[in-house]
This record gives sequence, structure tokens and C-alpha cells, in this order.
Amino acid sequence: MDTTVMLGHGSGGTMMKRIIDDVFFAAYAGDELLRGDDAAVLPAPAPGERLAFSTDSFVVTPHFFPGGDIGRLAVCGTVNDVATSGAVPRYLSCGFVLEEGFPIEDLKRICASMAECAQEAGVHLVTGDTKVVNRGHGDGVYINTSGVGTIPEGVNLGGAQCKPGDKVLVTGTLGDHGITIMSCRESLSFSADLESDAAPLNHLIAEVLAAAPNTRCFRDPTRGGLASTLNELAAQSNTDITVEEDAIPVKPAVQGACEMLGYDVLQVANEGKMVCVVAAEEADAALAAMRANRYGADAAIIGEVSAARPERGSKVFLRTAFGGTRILDMLVGEQLPRIC
Amino acid sequence: MDTTVMLGHGSGGTMMKRIIDDVFFAAYAGDELLRGDDAAVLPAPAPGERLAFSTDSFVVTPHFFPGGDIGRLAVCGTVNDVATSGAVPRYLSCGFVLEEGFPIEDLKRICASMAECAQEAGVHLVTGDTKVVNRGHGDGVYINTSGVGTIPEGVNLGGAQCKPGDKVLVTGTLGDHGITIMSCRESLSFSADLESDAAPLNHLIAEVLAAAPNTRCFRDPTRGGLASTLNELAAQSNTDITVEEDAIPVKPAVQGACEMLGYDVLQVANEGKMVCVVAAEEADAALAAMRANRYGADAAIIGEVSAARPERGSKVFLRTAFGGTRILDMLVGEQLPRIC
Repeated sequence: MDTTVMLGHGSGGTMMKRIIDDVFFAAYAGDELLRGDDAAVLPAPAPGERLAFSTDSFVVTPHFFPGGDIGRLAVCGTVNDVATSGAVPRYLSCGFVLEEGFPIEDLKRICASMAECAQEAGVHLVTGDTKVVNRGHGDGVYINTSGVGTIPEGVNLGGAQCKPGDKVLVTGTLGDHGITIMSCRESLSFSADLESDAAPLNHLIAEVLAAAPNTRCFRDPTRGGLASTLNELAAQSNTDITVEEDAIPVKPAVQGACEMLGYDVLQVANEGKMVCVVAAEEADAALAAMRANRYGADAAIIGEVSAARPERGSKVFLRTAFGGTRILDMLVGEQLPRIC
Repeated sequence: MDTTVMLGHGSGGTMMKRIIDDVFFAAYAGDELLRGDDAAVLPAPAPGERLAFSTDSFVVTPHFFPGGDIGRLAVCGTVNDVATSGAVPRYLSCGFVLEEGFPIEDLKRICASMAECAQEAGVHLVTGDTKVVNRGHGDGVYINTSGVGTIPEGVNLGGAQCKPGDKVLVTGTLGDHGITIMSCRESLSFSADLESDAAPLNHLIAEVLAAAPNTRCFRDPTRGGLASTLNELAAQSNTDITVEEDAIPVKPAVQGACEMLGYDVLQVANEGKMVCVVAAEEADAALAAMRANRYGADAAIIGEVSAARPERGSKVFLRTAFGGTRILDMLVGEQLPRIC
């Protein structure tokens, strides 16, 4: 068996067939992938259902980190994006861009992680593609996943649905993923138990929707963090959003790292958290549903939506622990590149 | 406006919003993309229809070449893969991995090309993602597209459907794309009018299916060329395939280049051609439908399927112009890297 990726593995010929058989099919091949045609053929959704479709590319470095790896991220990221629509994620595609010289053992480890995470999420990897680029023109491995899900009849989520009076929730502590990657990369160690939160949240979302049918939207605060996500939701729904600093769950080790390094934890990326906006009367039910899920133990109600003042457009405010209020802006440039 | 891609364009913050608005939305935004949620919400297929789903990443260099560019390839490649199932391609995702320093003007040119090609194919770019990697860790731009289509009731194509007696057709001349890229890259000029064949073939496929309902399968002979594609089809259907060298359309300039450089034109990549297997009694109708399409003028019947001999498994044979017969193997290693 080959030990490193070679240009021939992207050739379309027998070497490519070998890496597909020995690495990808060995990790996660179902009937649809094994059939070997150029497009997967999939059953239609049930009557009344619509489709959800999303895509995400993953370029994180390092490829392996506490709490996950690029493969787990690649499955979780797209599963979560599809699930934000209220869809049941069903099918994933997987496109690899491999760099010549990348160790096959690392690729197998990544594929095993993808298979495990896909099984947890209940999605099937049904179609794929592999390209190989010359040494020096990639960074080992880049992964694109795209996902297709089915949205049950009557579910209509979206950032534009937020209404004045709605409550804003997060499903757990913020900043874990970003600070973990950063401390890996810089070989800092803030805390022995700091790890990425990368997780598939589709089951949690389904449980919240069952408990709180007047949920307006979910959005995962990845790049740009909570601050950017809240600004997106406020702008989409033309509302103001105010969150309470004291109510936002942050692990002490993450808070400490942010203070030492000058990061705003509200702009740090998460990979296993959801922001959720719910009608006020269902906020407690949504919170209880979150806390009952293994990925929502630290969920909290962190703020609420109000009417935007027409003369200045939508804004996001943070009420600080000291009783002041400041505008919470979107991230502008780049805080931490290649976080996912 | 920014003139080159910066790390901040992948941040999830306001710089990313700017490149999305100024480049991607300016080129091809429809309602679904503009809505700004994390997953596109799409209508379900009509009753009886199934879904087709495929993915492809594009890493070709150079990014611009006679007859196309990486953007046109990225749309055609996935449209064609989806269409091979007999589906009507409907929706595309687009994931960019950009390298810091890539010219924004080049990115705009690529996006304009994608928009034009998507319009020709009748597909909508409904969801996307943008990552930026550090200078020296990419090659300007890599693009992943994934595609969703709907398969009409009763259409069941696939490599496994080929049967002894069926005819094998190609929709036009072989090797144009691979030889064009190679001559660009090496600054060779074999012929002033040599250009890539990159084209969306979904309309052609639909026309063939209407004329020849007993079509067994389509497959686009990209990496690995006709030889690898025929070997895949033979293996999937456990048949032999024999093609006539004299019947295979090849442009003289491409043939000349291959002879000079020692390439086997039957292993060179194509990006605007289909191999098609059809029941013998419908072969002429399929051929006429191909020739009536702008991308099928040079279509030809090139061979036929026969029963495999059980003692040695499926094989592909080439009957040469001199009357001999040789085994036509799959490409083994790499003939020409990063062709698509």
C-alpha cells in the first residue's frame, strides 16, 4: 500500500481507484457510493417536504487538535449548516484536495473520524471527488463537504423571522474551538482540558423544534463568533438584539486565554454551538430541550430582540457586567485565520 | 475596493461580507443566495422524481486557457456529472479556497464565467462558502461545486446497465481539453485553433434521452480519458467493450500533439464530451440527437458491448486502424496532473 499521497492518486486511473478503495471506501462506503456512477441517485423527500442544501470547505491547521480533527469539522460544519434550516440532514458529498506527500495514515485517520461523525449525525456520504495538487501548492488536505437535507412541512426558519420580544439563546460555552486551535498552533497551554467543541447538532435542533415550535432560527456562530452572528440576524430581521454579558457562558480557561491574548471571546469561532431565537413564551421549553441534550448542558438564555430604531438601522448591544451598554460590532478583519 | 484577496476575506466578518457582496453576489446572486441563511431552502422535486447529487473540486492550472477557465470548468464538471444520471441539474453550491494575494479582478472574471455557464445550463448557484489560506499554501483559487438535480420518473441510467449488443457512442472529438491545458502550461502551440471543449452537456443528454429512451448510461471521460471510462463501464456491467480506432473522432492537431509528446489520446482528459451506451436499435436515433446539438456535431458510434468471458473478467479492446486488436487499459499513474 502507498504511504504518501502521489500525483497519480488524482489521475482518474488505477492509482486513483486504489486510494478510493483502500482509504475512502474502507472508511465509509455505503451502497450508493459503491455503485460507482458519477452522481448519487437518492430517493425524493416525502410529500410536503422541501430540500435544504449547504456547502463548506475546511482548511483548518493543525489537522488534528484536542476535541477533533479536520474530518470531524468537515462533517459537523455542513450537518450543522443544513440543520439550521430545520432540515433533517441526510446526504453528504466529500471533495478532497490533497497535497502530494500527505501521509496516507493521516488521511485514513481523517476518514475514520468523518465516518464516525456521520454515523452519529445519521447522514450518509454518498458522492465524492479527489484531487491531488503538487507539493508546495496546498497544505496537506483541504476538504469540502456539501449537504442535502429534508425540511418537514410547516417548518420555516430563518434569520429574517426574528421578532421584537423574542429571546436569544446559546447552546453552550463560547470560544472553545477558536482558543483550542490557537493554543495548539502557538504551542500554548492554557488548560489541560481545553478542547474544540466540534459536534453535530442536528439532533439537538430537532429536539428544540419539538419543544418550541415557535423557534425563529438557528445559526452556528463559527467564523466571526457570536458577535458577527447576532449582527447578521439583527440585519436580516431589521431588529435590535441586546445580550447580557453575565448570561453568556464562557469557560474560565477560555476567558483567561482571551484576556491574556487580547481576543474578544464574542468574536472567537465555535464549531459545536448554536445561537437560537425563540418566541418568548417558548424560551424556557427550548432551554430545557437544549440542556437535556449532551451538547447543550451549558445552554443559556442570553438576551432578547427588540424593535430597531428606524433612524439608525439594526444594532446589537452588549449589557456589560458593570451595568454599562456598548455596541457589539461584527468582526472586521481577521482574528485567527484558518480556524475551520 | 480591495485589489487582492486578504486573509480577512475569509474571516466571517465585514471583510468577508464585502467580498461576498462585491464579487459573488455581483456575479450571480439569486433570491436564495441573497436570503443570507446558512442553508438554501429549495422546493421538493415533483412526485415520482428522485434526486441526483454529485461533487467535484477544481484545481486546474493555468486558471484561464483557450476555450474556458476554472470557473467554466467548475460549473460544467458538476452539471455534467449530475446529468449523467439522467437528471435535470437544478442547483449548485460553490466553495472557494482562495490564496492570500490572488487578484480580485481574476476572481471577478472567474465568477462572471461561472454565472454565464450556469445560465446556459439552467442551474442556480444557491449556496456558497469562502475560505482564504495563507500565501504559499494554495495556488490562487480552488473551487468545489456540488450539484443537485431531479431525475424524471422511469429514468434509470448507470454503468451497470450496459448489455451485450449495445452500441457505444462519443459526443465529439477526444483529447481537446487535456492537450489545450498541456500546451498552455508548457507554452507549446500546436495549432492556433486548439481549445478546451469545456461545455455543459445537460441539454444534449436530455435530447438523447428523448430520442433514445433505451439509453443505458452516460459517463464523461474526464481524468483518465476514454480508456479509463470504458474500463469503468465494462467492470460495472461485467461486459467486454470493443471500440474501433478509426471511428473515434480526434482533431488532427490533437492527434499530432499526442504523437509528438507520447501521450495516448484515449487517456487524455475531456471536459465537454460524453460516452454513451445505447441499445443497438436506438443508436442511430441517439447519434442524430447528438449531432443536432451544438456540442455534438462530431458525435460518432465507436464500438459495442459484448459478453465478458467468465474466465478472465471484463476487458476493453481497441481494434486498430491496421486491423489488429489490443487491450485498452485504464490509465495507471498520472499523465498530466491538475487538468481540471
